Amino acid sequence: MTVSYDPIFKCKDDDCIMEYVLSERVKTLKPSAIREIFKYAADPTVVSLSAGNPAPEAFPVQEIAEISNKILTETPIAALQYSVTEGYPPLRKAVGDYMKKTYNVGTDRDELIITSGAQQVMDLLTKSTVNEGDTVICEAPSFIGSLNSFRSYNAHLCGIPLESDGMNIECLEKALQTEKNVRFIYIIANFQNPSGVTTSWEKRQKIYELAKKYNVMILEDNPYGELRISGENIPPIKSLDQDGIVAYVGSFSKILSPGMRLGYVIAPKEIVQKMVVCKQGEDVHTNIWAQMVAEKFMTEYDFNGHLENLRTVYRKKAHFCMDLLDKYLVPNKITYQPIEGGLFIWCRLPDGVNMVDFCKQAVLRKVCVVPGNAFLTDEAEQCSSFRINFSTPTDEQLEKGIKILGELAKEIL
Amino acid sequence: MTVSYDPIFKCKDDDCIMEYVLSERVKTLKPSAIREIFKYAADPTVVSLSAGNPAPEAFPVQEIAEISNKILTETPIAALQYSVTEGYPPLRKAVGDYMKKTYNVGTDRDELIITSGAQQVMDLLTKSTVNEGDTVICEAPSFIGSLNSFRSYNAHLCGIPLESDGMNIECLEKALQTEKNVRFIYIIANFQNPSGVTTSWEKRQKIYELAKKYNVMILEDNPYGELRISGENIPPIKSLDQDGIVAYVGSFSKILSPGMRLGYVIAPKEIVQKMVVCKQGEDVHTNIWAQMVAEKFMTEYDFNGHLENLRTVYRKKAHFCMDLLDKYLVPNKITYQPIEGGLFIWCRLPDGVNMVDFCKQAVLRKVCVVPGNAFLTDEAEQCSSFRINFSTPTDEQLEKGIKILGELAKEIL
Repeated sequence: MTVSYDPIFKCKDDDCIMEYVLSERVKTLKPSAIREIFKYAADPTVVSLSAGNPAPEAFPVQEIAEISNKILTETPIAALQYSVTEGYPPLRKAVGDYMKKTYNVGTDRDELIITSGAQQVMDLLTKSTVNEGDTVICEAPSFIGSLNSFRSYNAHLCGIPLESDGMNIECLEKALQTEKNVRFIYIIANFQNPSGVTTSWEKRQKIYELAKKYNVMILEDNPYGELRISGENIPPIKSLDQDGIVAYVGSFSKILSPGMRLGYVIAPKEIVQKMVVCKQGEDVHTNIWAQMVAEKFMTEYDFNGHLENLRTVYRKKAHFCMDLLDKYLVPNKITYQPIEGGLFIWCRLPDGVNMVDFCKQAVLRKVCVVPGNAFLTDEAEQCSSFRINFSTPTDEQLEKGIKILGELAKEIL
Repeated sequence: MTVSYDPIFKCKDDDCIMEYVLSERVKTLKPSAIREIFKYAADPTVVSLSAGNPAPEAFPVQEIAEISNKILTETPIAALQYSVTEGYPPLRKAVGDYMKKTYNVGTDRDELIITSGAQQVMDLLTKSTVNEGDTVICEAPSFIGSLNSFRSYNAHLCGIPLESDGMNIECLEKALQTEKNVRFIYIIANFQNPSGVTTSWEKRQKIYELAKKYNVMILEDNPYGELRISGENIPPIKSLDQDGIVAYVGSFSKILSPGMRLGYVIAPKEIVQKMVVCKQGEDVHTNIWAQMVAEKFMTEYDFNGHLENLRTVYRKKAHFCMDLLDKYLVPNKITYQPIEGGLFIWCRLPDGVNMVDFCKQAVLRKVCVVPGNAFLTDEAEQCSSFRINFSTPTDEQLEKGIKILGELAKEIL
């Protein structure tokens, strides 16, 4: 990815007078392990089950082109000029109305701002509330992008074991009692990345009560919430928030387009106002053309119909994938957690098997999955699972890849 | 800008159990003073000379619409899907080639990445190299957006008095000798915001030598470099960089569109690689549609012709503005620093006049300018200057506003 320049200034070793000083917070920061795996995945002969991209057929290409054309014809200056840090007011209203009506999320104590992807919320909330060395509690495993964002402010991460219905509540309470300066609990309650786990309604209530009891915020990240393929919706933790303790994060990446980089946060005003000041210093505001496109798509098109179409696409792909797992992996001692939505499935090797070695063997056979330890707060910890994604590969690639994993399992397990 | 929700959950005072804990770094962070002034400027009866928006007639609207349409027809998935953190490779190449060819910027020691506006570079470099309490040296006055970005990491700011040809070199060397943990020198060498000052070639060389001598990086921010309306181009400090000590920041905001949020940095690989990891945690990557549009605009259209047109637009506006200043302000004891480019003019009141009071009086007469102390590292410091912008207002507004300022000056100075 380096752009090479003509080496007009040749750098001899003894020219290198500069001693680069790095801040303490980034010294130990590493590029995401998933990105390293992408290097293999870039090989076109490798079947990649390691990505997390939405299915290409899930993009409303025609509608986006139509809206974009309209905006650049009718109000080009508004789409190209500087805008306000908080986000395009009509989009803030559209999202706020939708979230209130659909999920009862947002109270008069909250404010909603648009961010450059949901990822930016992880950054802004950490920057606004976490001093170096303070604790962030998260699920173990959890989304590596968020963990790296917390790490980039030198937060101390405390992982709580994830069960099939959400965090272990006893471990959570113990962490709240013993960890120093806990600033927030990070949770992906629906179809968690990487585990696919959905936190039960009972546990959502308990987590809320514990956060309240210990005066700690909750960062509820919900990128996959609209992608439920079976079962009933469970209300967000934020819908319980009469006390102003939950920051709710939403994203357009899985329902419209990730390349647009659009997310949002609904959180208590006191916190959001500091996040706005931080956002000013980070990117001034989010690409305004993208915000205008999203607003028109939500308000002038059949947004709910589009979400229904998405669910149909992913339902089909998920079931196809789980059928393949039943056929090729389960008979060969690899189990998995069935999912009700999202983009990922968490597969588990028998105890005692070296998971990282299994993943390496898979890459040698041209199938790429993500080793589970990449998602732990401490990558050196023991882990028997790996993550596969079913939204990016074609059906043919899925079948080919999972079949190879099955053959490998049959040979070495 | 708040999005109001139906107050379903009424918050009584005794419900407010949450004690919000803010990080040390943001506790004293305030919204930009300029944004506060924008509140007045939003009044349509007020003539705003306080903004910094490019002139609306400077946007290549037709070309952007054409390119966008083409991209969304021919390669929609590439424009809507996730992309890489470093930026769209063809855009990185186009910018790198242009900067090398036009300004001899970039060596084999450097790497170029695309950022979400130049603003993001201020954030990423500070995050990567500045520990809390470390020093950043800047011009005094300087661009408030950058200063706030440095402040948001608890950097200690040390302002060096700006003379008509750049920083006072003696003060700079003294600061390098006495300030603790200086991490970089922040400089806008062309048509500085807010002062309009261009740093001379002689001083650029001296600043480079001092940075090298004291093992400190230079952050060279050049958002206005292409907007020279008279005189000869002076090579960027980065063109001297045989030692890998300069991070050069460019922006598409003034030459294409600020709403797209496109900037870039050309800096030593060691530093850029850490910035990439930080960017991953901040926004994953920059809006990819915008990157594709910029690339096609640079490579398939008459980019240099467009820049020439821009200069014609701004030359006309700047001269019109300076003529008005000569006519209305100079006879009434307000002087200004003539400019050779950029978007701003720095006006100076006679010694002993209360500048903030003058700006307030101006607002009461419906003309909005930015008090100069907003651009100081310590806003409480004494300052006799204010900033006006000539790119955003129409000719009529400019004449009306400057005439009112002249009348006010005549009355009270």
